[in-house]
Amino acid sequence: MLQSTDARTGALQGAAWHESTPEQIDAAVAAAASAADAFAATSNAQRAAFLRALAQALGDNAAALLPIADRETALGLPRLEGELARTAFQLRGFADALEQGGAQAFLDEAAIAGAPPAGRPRLTRIVAPLGPVAVFAASNFPFAFSVLGGDSASALAAGCPVVLKAHPGHAQLSRDVAAIAAAVIAQCGLPAGVFQLVEGASVAVGVQLVQSPAIAAVAFTGSFKGGTALARLAAERARPIPFYGELGSVNPLVVLPAALGNGPQALAQTLADSICLGAGQFCTSPGVIVVFKDGPGEAFVQQLRARLAALSPHAMLNAGIRAAFERGVGQWRAHGKLQVLVDGPPSQATPQPFLAQVDAADFIADHALQEEVFGAAALVVRVDDGAQASAVLNAIGGTLTSTLWGVPTGETLPDEAVLALVRTAVQVSGRVLFSGVPTGVAVTAAQHHGGPFPASTAPFTTSVGYAAIERFLRPLALQDAPQWLLAKEGAFF
Amino acid sequence: MLQSTDARTGALQGAAWHESTPEQIDAAVAAAASAADAFAATSNAQRAAFLRALAQALGDNAAALLPIADRETALGLPRLEGELARTAFQLRGFADALEQGGAQAFLDEAAIAGAPPAGRPRLTRIVAPLGPVAVFAASNFPFAFSVLGGDSASALAAGCPVVLKAHPGHAQLSRDVAAIAAAVIAQCGLPAGVFQLVEGASVAVGVQLVQSPAIAAVAFTGSFKGGTALARLAAERARPIPFYGELGSVNPLVVLPAALGNGPQALAQTLADSICLGAGQFCTSPGVIVVFKDGPGEAFVQQLRARLAALSPHAMLNAGIRAAFERGVGQWRAHGKLQVLVDGPPSQATPQPFLAQVDAADFIADHALQEEVFGAAALVVRVDDGAQASAVLNAIGGTLTSTLWGVPTGETLPDEAVLALVRTAVQVSGRVLFSGVPTGVAVTAAQHHGGPFPASTAPFTTSVGYAAIERFLRPLALQDAPQWLLAKEGAFF
Repeated sequence: MLQSTDARTGALQGAAWHESTPEQIDAAVAAAASAADAFAATSNAQRAAFLRALAQALGDNAAALLPIADRETALGLPRLEGELARTAFQLRGFADALEQGGAQAFLDEAAIAGAPPAGRPRLTRIVAPLGPVAVFAASNFPFAFSVLGGDSASALAAGCPVVLKAHPGHAQLSRDVAAIAAAVIAQCGLPAGVFQLVEGASVAVGVQLVQSPAIAAVAFTGSFKGGTALARLAAERARPIPFYGELGSVNPLVVLPAALGNGPQALAQTLADSICLGAGQFCTSPGVIVVFKDGPGEAFVQQLRARLAALSPHAMLNAGIRAAFERGVGQWRAHGKLQVLVDGPPSQATPQPFLAQVDAADFIADHALQEEVFGAAALVVRVDDGAQASAVLNAIGGTLTSTLWGVPTGETLPDEAVLALVRTAVQVSGRVLFSGVPTGVAVTAAQHHGGPFPASTAPFTTSVGYAAIERFLRPLALQDAPQWLLAKEGAFF
Repeated sequence: MLQSTDARTGALQGAAWHESTPEQIDAAVAAAASAADAFAATSNAQRAAFLRALAQALGDNAAALLPIADRETALGLPRLEGELARTAFQLRGFADALEQGGAQAFLDEAAIAGAPPAGRPRLTRIVAPLGPVAVFAASNFPFAFSVLGGDSASALAAGCPVVLKAHPGHAQLSRDVAAIAAAVIAQCGLPAGVFQLVEGASVAVGVQLVQSPAIAAVAFTGSFKGGTALARLAAERARPIPFYGELGSVNPLVVLPAALGNGPQALAQTLADSICLGAGQFCTSPGVIVVFKDGPGEAFVQQLRARLAALSPHAMLNAGIRAAFERGVGQWRAHGKLQVLVDGPPSQATPQPFLAQVDAADFIADHALQEEVFGAAALVVRVDDGAQASAVLNAIGGTLTSTLWGVPTGETLPDEAVLALVRTAVQVSGRVLFSGVPTGVAVTAAQHHGGPFPASTAPFTTSVGYAAIERFLRPLALQDAPQWLLAKEGAFF
């Protein structure tokens, strides 16, 4: 059974309802499949208008949606207002991207007379929408990575119908946003199958969706365990399909000595705020802070300790996430090689920030320390030098982001130790930051929100920004295409 | 044991040698891994010069290589001369692509002041080479899809070292080409690990390569069975890696009535020649010919029958491939629903072309008929109308190519039946041809040689043409990147 829950109190709200039955899931997939050709044949302008209408409807319904979102997630109204604005901005951004035509990788090459290899026929590279996409909503962004979030927006922009698996953590909000989407679809004259909602807290719902033969791709934001299990199912189908899984990561942040020239205070505050932002429930939350074993490094750690201890995260998304956080922190607390720096008294209602320190050699040797603890918790890893900082990044292996504070910003190449550190960060990360904090992911064309496994199951793709559309558009070549088809300049028909 | 074999006689040539031991494979992978950073740091100009030197060396050694290739594959000198020229052209083409910078998807977006979602930091999208790539050579293109073929060329262009698994069917040629590559690498001052050869006829060699932790991606051209087995191993690694498998396909060709206005003769000859080209040993060989049940269609089938019966394919690549061909044809010959049209007397030395006819309904109902028989064999599938032709393409499901003869070429949209057929062809194919035959794959930027599963395990990617480089370059975002890094404009460092 599903039921709306107050994230702050655990109190159940309103009536409970059943999760989608296997028959309902089949019907949702069938509706999406039957809508696929007609939706694929819409023009970029039509889909852009549709995305803008969704953005408009979200905004128009904000006053009704925000209190439900706040009650179900405890994320607070200011954050949720910003997130709803971001979600509408994102829908409009994909509309802009469609109108600019960037998603259609149209490349038309004239024939060259003569024998091969130099001679060739006329070849035109276009893209085609994949078909129905299963989208798994995340718990921690009830708007931006949920019903009408980035995965849905990019699949719809590509011309692919969406079957959305709602997150049970914001069950009522998901229903309400899906109803808004259905109304917009009707208003735009599109088939209802363009967007379908399925609901469930059990594993079976997601498994059925991934295994449905008509599903052509899966977009997932969530846990490593759930994501890798579903990715394997997608690969084991008779016809394997792409699985775009964003599984979170530890997001190392390296504080080079050069970063501390102006003192540790401001940077420590910025970092403490980032660790606690949204009670640490960000896939980009900085979880490993790499600090040199020198005087300025020690001063920075003490500042970070003081600033973090002064912060009080709000309630977490639900009891399961809170329990996992306490379990993770408990393991760190009991770990013989860690020195605990910040550890508030246990509290029933809200989590306490946690910070511990470990020597780089111990961190590198213990794989368990390299795993994410989802919430306001971080490890300070103390290193001897830049080479050891690189080794820490390599031990982590795959991460959504790495942040390097103190890399020289000018035109002169830095020394080889720094260069090697930057090279390592590039090799293990989806995004490398040279200032600021990794929380906050701009929605733009140059964004890349993904990263080597285990951060993502599809490291070549991004789930944020306009390149996300490419996940649902398959390139192909036309040879000696007719005029009527070339006139479409790569748009599907 | 490995030994060079005369493909026409089965006679063994020269001395036999051992396949690579597990220790040798480990050493090859380790050498590639140790060369990865230095090779990634080469400039586009340096890698372009390297690729041109490889092309030059292939040409310089043509007189020595071609007789060995002909003896080991029976493909004939004219074809092999063309293939060597194509392979050199391809290496030079990747060099051109590098110098034009297209492979580096550099996208630099200025910061926008203000709060998110509109406000954002400076973001720069670049690409990074993946690291060592395992390449599995194909049997049927001893130059173009082998040691220095498209997979090697595109991986090297991307800045990734290659560990090449030689095809045992042209074992001596592979050694000789690898020795040429090693000499060029030394001459260019690159680390020897940039290109490593491993050899073996047993499954274990390939399995070890795919499971080697330092291997970052696999490129494979070969059978469905071998490809899907290795793809699964790649997905099941602790750190899954991309598996770019090109597995061949049946390549349907639809003869619309409008194509036959000028009579069937020329088209039938063109098609018969394509079916027999290289003894049918092309992954793009047309295996299913869709013809309407009308008078012109019947005349076309009779012409095709006559033209094909007059052709004599040359010897096949090896005894195993010949046996598989005879087994496949034998199953068709014994199939109760097929009417055999062309079936030469069994011959010891060379295969005979085979053609049979089947009703579309029977073809669609029997999955076994939709599978590729590798060699000079094809099925004529007779359809009532365009809708049934679409149903035949949908039953095939995923194919490297579909060819549609008789689609109107002008600016006027065709009728809905033809439109639906084109739409289906786009959905199931990596390349859709509107004239000519699918054998022959131009090496160019707009090419796409791949296609929905089971034609390819990675349908978004191409193994021919300059977009093939993208398989080995992972995008990522830099946030507030320093000037010295931005100055590289997306090239790695």
